[in-house]
Amino acid sequence: MPIAAVQLRTLRLRSSYIEISNLLRGRSVAWPRQCYSPVQAPRQFHARACLRQEEPPKQLPAFLEAYKRAVDFPPATHDFETFFAQAEANTEVVLHGYLGNRADLSKKLSFVRLSDPTLQQSLQVVAFAKNDAFEQLKTINANSPVAVRGTVQKKKKTKPSEGDNTPAQDQWELALEEIHPLNDFPKEIIMTAETVFPPEQRYLQLRSDAELRKALRFRARAHNLCKKELEQCRPPFVEIETPLLFKSTPEGAREFIVPTRREGLAYALPQSPQQYKQILMASGLPRYYQFARCFRDEDLRADRQPEFTQLDMEMSFATGDDVMRTVEGVIRRLWSSLMKDPAPEGPFRKVSYQEVMAKYGSDKPDTRYGMEIIRLDHVLPVDLVSKISGLTNPVVEAFKLEGNDNDPAETHKFITQFLDSPAGAPFNDNPDGGPGVFIYNGKQPLCGLQPFGFEAAEQVEELLDPDHGDLIILQARPRAPFSGGSTPVGDLRRALHAASVTAGFKPAPTGFDFLWVVGFPLFSPTSDSEPGQGGAAGFSSTHHPFTAPKTPADVDLLLTDPTKAVADHYDLVVNGVELGGGSRRIHDAAVQEFIFRDILKMPAERLADFSHLLDALRSGCPPHAGLALGFDRLVAVMLGKESVRDVIAFPKTGKGGDDAMVGAPSLMTEEALKTYHLKLRQ
Amino acid sequence: MPIAAVQLRTLRLRSSYIEISNLLRGRSVAWPRQCYSPVQAPRQFHARACLRQEEPPKQLPAFLEAYKRAVDFPPATHDFETFFAQAEANTEVVLHGYLGNRADLSKKLSFVRLSDPTLQQSLQVVAFAKNDAFEQLKTINANSPVAVRGTVQKKKKTKPSEGDNTPAQDQWELALEEIHPLNDFPKEIIMTAETVFPPEQRYLQLRSDAELRKALRFRARAHNLCKKELEQCRPPFVEIETPLLFKSTPEGAREFIVPTRREGLAYALPQSPQQYKQILMASGLPRYYQFARCFRDEDLRADRQPEFTQLDMEMSFATGDDVMRTVEGVIRRLWSSLMKDPAPEGPFRKVSYQEVMAKYGSDKPDTRYGMEIIRLDHVLPVDLVSKISGLTNPVVEAFKLEGNDNDPAETHKFITQFLDSPAGAPFNDNPDGGPGVFIYNGKQPLCGLQPFGFEAAEQVEELLDPDHGDLIILQARPRAPFSGGSTPVGDLRRALHAASVTAGFKPAPTGFDFLWVVGFPLFSPTSDSEPGQGGAAGFSSTHHPFTAPKTPADVDLLLTDPTKAVADHYDLVVNGVELGGGSRRIHDAAVQEFIFRDILKMPAERLADFSHLLDALRSGCPPHAGLALGFDRLVAVMLGKESVRDVIAFPKTGKGGDDAMVGAPSLMTEEALKTYHLKLRQ
Repeated sequence: MPIAAVQLRTLRLRSSYIEISNLLRGRSVAWPRQCYSPVQAPRQFHARACLRQEEPPKQLPAFLEAYKRAVDFPPATHDFETFFAQAEANTEVVLHGYLGNRADLSKKLSFVRLSDPTLQQSLQVVAFAKNDAFEQLKTINANSPVAVRGTVQKKKKTKPSEGDNTPAQDQWELALEEIHPLNDFPKEIIMTAETVFPPEQRYLQLRSDAELRKALRFRARAHNLCKKELEQCRPPFVEIETPLLFKSTPEGAREFIVPTRREGLAYALPQSPQQYKQILMASGLPRYYQFARCFRDEDLRADRQPEFTQLDMEMSFATGDDVMRTVEGVIRRLWSSLMKDPAPEGPFRKVSYQEVMAKYGSDKPDTRYGMEIIRLDHVLPVDLVSKISGLTNPVVEAFKLEGNDNDPAETHKFITQFLDSPAGAPFNDNPDGGPGVFIYNGKQPLCGLQPFGFEAAEQVEELLDPDHGDLIILQARPRAPFSGGSTPVGDLRRALHAASVTAGFKPAPTGFDFLWVVGFPLFSPTSDSEPGQGGAAGFSSTHHPFTAPKTPADVDLLLTDPTKAVADHYDLVVNGVELGGGSRRIHDAAVQEFIFRDILKMPAERLADFSHLLDALRSGCPPHAGLALGFDRLVAVMLGKESVRDVIAFPKTGKGGDDAMVGAPSLMTEEALKTYHLKLRQ
Repeated sequence: MPIAAVQLRTLRLRSSYIEISNLLRGRSVAWPRQCYSPVQAPRQFHARACLRQEEPPKQLPAFLEAYKRAVDFPPATHDFETFFAQAEANTEVVLHGYLGNRADLSKKLSFVRLSDPTLQQSLQVVAFAKNDAFEQLKTINANSPVAVRGTVQKKKKTKPSEGDNTPAQDQWELALEEIHPLNDFPKEIIMTAETVFPPEQRYLQLRSDAELRKALRFRARAHNLCKKELEQCRPPFVEIETPLLFKSTPEGAREFIVPTRREGLAYALPQSPQQYKQILMASGLPRYYQFARCFRDEDLRADRQPEFTQLDMEMSFATGDDVMRTVEGVIRRLWSSLMKDPAPEGPFRKVSYQEVMAKYGSDKPDTRYGMEIIRLDHVLPVDLVSKISGLTNPVVEAFKLEGNDNDPAETHKFITQFLDSPAGAPFNDNPDGGPGVFIYNGKQPLCGLQPFGFEAAEQVEELLDPDHGDLIILQARPRAPFSGGSTPVGDLRRALHAASVTAGFKPAPTGFDFLWVVGFPLFSPTSDSEPGQGGAAGFSSTHHPFTAPKTPADVDLLLTDPTKAVADHYDLVVNGVELGGGSRRIHDAAVQEFIFRDILKMPAERLADFSHLLDALRSGCPPHAGLALGFDRLVAVMLGKESVRDVIAFPKTGKGGDDAMVGAPSLMTEEALKTYHLKLRQ
C-alpha cells in the first residue's frame, strides 16, 4: 500500500485512534498507547513509542516514519581500508560509520570525524553551509551510525613538516554532500575510552573499549593458528564436533542437567568431550581436536566460568610425550605469530608434582621470581617450632623475599602492611599456625635470627643466603604427603610476591616460563567440594578416572597401595597459570573396569553409566593420550589479562554464574516446569 | 615397586586372594572377583577381568600383566605417508596400525596387511619363521592395533606389466622383525566394509565405514573453507563465541532449560545465537560469524537433531543483499574447492514465496525436474471439482508427470502402485479430497480427459501440453492465502517425483540449482506445534520477531493489516533442501518494541525477557542483517547424503532424541533433582 493511502486511512480513523480496525480479519492492531512497564526486570525505557500517550496522533507514528527513512540508505562504495588505499581527489564516495563529536568552526563550517564500522580507522568530514547536509549534521548525536556521501579531497597540510609519511587517514578528508542518520545514539549516554559500564551494558563496554574488541579479534587469530598447527601435523588432526546433549556420568565435576519431555529423563552438559574423544580413538579416527564448549556447575571460584571453551585434542597410538610435543608446537606457533618474543626452543622442561609442591608450594607455580621454598624442620629447635605451630612434629618450610634497598625498616613496613591487610588475614588465621616472620638484619644479634639459636641460624644462613633487609618466612604444616593444588607456604609465597609487586617492592616479572608438571598422584583423598566418582574407596581420581598409571610399577601399586600410584598426567603451566592438562588414558577395558569397580569402588549402577566407554575400549581400541588447553585462559595469558572475562564477548559476571546483561538464569515458568514433568521442591 | 617384589607380595597373600590388605591406610583393594552386572543398561560384558571367577590367581592378574606389555611399545619412526615417500630398502622402521587378515602361505611364511592408524593406506607385511614375531603374529586377531618393527624391502613385481606407476603402497613391503599387540580386537565381532552396526556401536560403524570417516574429514574441510571465505572479506568477519547458557525468551521454538542450584532459576540453551549476535552489531563489531551449536526441543521430525550446528553470521551497516552476496561467496568457494562442478556464476536468482508456493507447492522446492504446478479451478467444470473435493469453491491445482515410454499402461501401473503404497496413504486420506488422477491417452476419447468436458480438456492440453502416457494430477485445497512450508499438491509433486525416480520411471536429477526464496509473510497464523511468541494476536512471526518488514509499504501495513506485510527474509534453497535462512533485522528499539507489544500482543512479562535486546538497539545500533546456514545439512547436501546423521560423528538416533550409544537421556537421580530443588510431578 502506498504511503499516501495509509495516511488517508489513518486520518479516517483519527477519531478512534486507539485501535485501527483490521476489517479484513476482524482483528485489531493497538497503537502504542502505554509506557512499557516490565514485570520481572524493571529497567528504564524511553522508547519513542511512549511519547504519544496524551495527544492523538495526526499521522503515521513518527517512529515508524523515522524507521522507514533509516532503512533507506545508500550502500557504501568502499570500506575504509579500500578507501584509504584508493582515495582519489574529487571523486564521490559513500561511507558508513559512526559520527564523532562535531566541531563548529563557524556558522558556515563544521568538522566531524567519521569512524569506520569496526571503529579502527577514521576520516575527517568537512561540512560547508552550502547544502542541507550541513544543517542535518547538527541534528545527529555523536556516536550515531550514519551513511555519508561526500567528495574526496586532499587534506591541507597543517604543518609544513608533514610529508608523504602522513598516514593515509590524515591525508584525505570528505566534503559532506549528504548524510543519512541510521539510528540515534542517546545523548544521555556518556561514552569515553575510559568509561566503565556495568555488566548489564556489555554492548556499551564493547562499543567504547577498543582493547576489549581487539582482544576478541586476537582470540579469533589465536584460534586460527591453533587450527593451522594441528592440521599441518602428519597425520593431520581433524576437527570433529561431539555432542553437548550428553549423559550424566561420574567423571568428577558437577554437571548441569537438561531435562527432557520424557518423564524423569535428562541429558547432562559435558564437563569435557573426554568420553566421546576416547571413543573416537576406538573409531579409527586417530587425531581429533575441537574447540569445545564445556560446562561445570561449580561454585564460581576466582576466575572460572560455568561454561568455557577448551582446545581439546586426542591422539591414538600415542603417548603423553607425543601429546606434549604437539602442544609445544601449538604454543610455539602462537607465540611466534602473535607475541613480541617467541616461546623458548626445545622441549619445555618437565618437573614433578612432588618437586613443584616442595619448591613452590603450588602445582602451577610462577617460576620466574625465585623465592624457592626449603624444608627447615630438621634444623629448627623444638621451642621455635612450637612457637609457630601447635602441630606435633610438623613440616616447617621457609622462603626468602629479597628486601628492597637493603633497608630492614622498609621490609618491616611492607610485611606489617601485608599481614594487616585483608590479603594477609587467611595466613594469620591458619589453624596450623601463622607465618613466622624474620627480617635479616646485620645490625642485630645473630642478624635477627636469635629465636633460631646459633646453630640453626647458621644453617638458615647457609640454606637461604639472606642479605641485610631480606625477609625470611617460616610456615608449618601437618606432616603428610602433598595433595591438592597448593600448600599454605606456597599460597603465602604467591601472595607476598604479588603484594611486593603491587607495593613496588619488587619489579613485576616478565616473559613466559613454560613447564610441564608431571607425576601427579593417580588418586587423591575425596573432598567435599569435588564429588569425584562417588566410589566408596575414600579417594577419587585426581583428574579423572580414565588416567593411566605412569609406569609398570604404578600398575603394580594398584594392587598394593593405589594411593601411592603416580598418574601419567601432565599439566602445562606458565607464570603461575595452568594452561591445560592431559594424560595418557587407560585404553584397556579390563583395566578401566578394574579401576572403576575395584579401586574406586564405584557402585554398579554408576559403573554402568560408563558401559559405552568400556564397550568401545573393548573393541580393539589403540593406546591413546590427549590434552585440553583452557582456551579462554590461554588467550588471557597471552594478552596479559587478569581475568578471562576480558577475552570473552559475553562472560558470566555474577558469583552465581549470572549473565547480567540478558538476565540469565531466570525464573522457570510453571509451563516450562510442566513440560518437563517437574515441580519445585518446597 | 619392582615387579618381582609385587609378585612376592601377591604370592604371600595367595591364601586370602580376595583382598590384598593395604596395611598402610587400613583400606583394602578388592580383586576383580565378580562379573559386572549393570543395573540400568544391561549389556554383554566379556572383560578379561571376569575370567578369573573360579580359580585363585597364581600371580599378578593376567590382564594387568598384558596391560603393562601393551603400553610399552616403540614409537613409530614414520607415519605411512612419510614412509611411502621416503621408503628405502634394507632400512628398519617401526609402524603403527591395524592388522588385516593373515594369510599363512606355508608353515614358514605368512602375509598380513597393516593399515595405518587413519585406515586410509596399508602395507604388506611378510613374516618368516625365523623369529618369535612369526609365531606371535598368529596369536593376534585381525583388526587389532599393533606396533610393528620390520625391514623395508622392495616388493617383487607380480606382473611384468607393473612399472614405475605402481602406487607406493604396492611397491614396498615389510619383513616382520617384532610385533607388539596393543589391544585385542574381539574375534566375535564381524566387521566388513558393508557391516551395519546398531547405533549403540557407533564406534564400530565409524571404524568399519570408510565413507563415514571420509564424511567427517570432508566436513572439517568445508568448515575451514567457510572460515577462509568469510575472513577474506573486507572488513573481515570475526569468529566470536556466544554463550550457550542463555535465558528463556519467546523467540519461536521450544527451548531446553538448564536448572541451576538457585531455587527456581534456570538457563535456557539457545535456539540460535540470534540475540547475542544482534547485540554484537550494537557493540561496534560489524561482522560476526560462528559455527554455533543450537538447540531446539522439537518433536524430531524427518531429519532434525535436537542439537545442530549452524554457520551463523551477521553484518551491520548491511542489507539482505549484502548478506546474500556474502553467502553466495561461501557457497562458490565450497563448490569450487570440494565439488566436481563449481556453483553457478552470478547472483543466485530470487523467487518469491508466493511464486514457489504456486509453482512448486513448497517454500524449498527442488527446481530441477519441472513438474510445475498450475491453477485449474477457473477452467474446470463444477461437477468435476465436486468429484475431487468436498470443499466449496476450492483452489484446484495440477501438474504433469511425463510418462515413461509413452505407455499409458506403465503409467497406470506406476501411479496405482504409488497410491496403494504407504507413501500414497496421506494423499488418499486428505480430508480436502484425494488427488484426481488422469492418464493422457491418445487412444481414448478426449485422450482420457473426458471428465473435464471438451472445453476444459482443451484448456488443460494447452496449459500442460501432455504427451501420450503422461500423468495429470489434480488436487484441491481451501481457497486461502499460502502459509506454511508446502501445499498438498506440492507434497504430492515431491513424493511422486521421488517415487518415479525410485521406480526407474524418471532419472534422478543431477546438479545443484540454487535459489533465494524471498518475500515470506512477516506473520503467520499461530499453530499448535510452534509456540511462537506467546502473544495474543492470533498470529506469530513467521521466522522470528526480529525480522524487518521488507519495504516502506510493509511498514505501513503494520498499522492496517500486519498479516499482509512481507518480511525481508531470505531462504537459501537448493534441490529441495533449505540450506539456511536469514533476514534484515529491526534495528530500531521503538519499532521492535511496537512489534512485540502492539502487533504480536506479547504480555508485558515476556516482553521484559527481551529488554536486553531493546536496550542494545536503543544504544545507537546500526542497521544489520544476517543469516544462518544449517551446517550439518549443507555438508549432507554436498555429499549427497539423505540424512544429516551421515555427517555427524555421534548423532542422536531415536525419535526421542536418544544417543543410543551412551544411553542419553538417562534417569535423573534423586540427588540431582535435590541439587536443583526439583522433584518429579506425579
